[in-house]
Amino acid sequence: MAPQPLIKSNKAERTINGLPTQVVCTEFSNYIFIVLTQYGKIGTLVSVTPDTRSGDISVPMYTSRVLLGKDEPLTHVYAKNVATFVSQASGNRPVLLGISLKDNGAETMKTIKDMIKSCQVW
Amino acid sequence: MAPQPLIKSNKAERTINGLPTQVVCTEFSNYIFIVLTQYGKIGTLVSVTPDTRSGDISVPMYTSRVLLGKDEPLTHVYAKNVATFVSQASGNRPVLLGISLKDNGAETMKTIKDMIKSCQVW
Repeated sequence: MAPQPLIKSNKAERTINGLPTQVVCTEFSNYIFIVLTQYGKIGTLVSVTPDTRSGDISVPMYTSRVLLGKDEPLTHVYAKNVATFVSQASGNRPVLLGISLKDNGAETMKTIKDMIKSCQVW
Repeated sequence: MAPQPLIKSNKAERTINGLPTQVVCTEFSNYIFIVLTQYGKIGTLVSVTPDTRSGDISVPMYTSRVLLGKDEPLTHVYAKNVATFVSQASGNRPVLLGISLKDNGAETMKTIKDMIKSCQVW
């Protein structure tokens, strides 16, 4: 007996600057889970949560935390950059990100955001 | 341009003892990621890694670590129970588990293992 799926998932594949790139978006009730990979790895796993203590509901602050992998300052910058727009588009939900990119350039990040929008699950 | 997917994913849905249950298995090159949910949540996120220092390659020891959610002794027991058979079947790869189950009974865990086998990605 197959019930309705509890979680929804979408994916997108594209070649960016010659690099095969895959985005997988999964909606859990308590998290949006997004994998951005050019290595096929889950990569660095980062949780980005809106700060509920923020006074202004419309522009929350975000806290990023590396759960798995290298904890580098730039990882937090990329994670917050991607997660902020996902969280804002999904009613300020926490975002769990798996990032393993060979190319972190601005153009690539822009294309990746477009890919995330194309496989939107929220 | 859509390249070959870098990561493979399969899922299974079943009703166990009246509870809709979903299993999603995703193969990353460095991790097998498995979600077991009866709540639609990502739940407790646990990494289970084989101990490479183990002398006997055929029967490695496993180390479990809660990355997200409640760190309870039973969580480690369930996580190791599920992850050990997945890891052994996939060449001792580390396993990342998201667990949110209402029913942790032996019968449910047996059915869930069958579901994991049915959506095997390794």
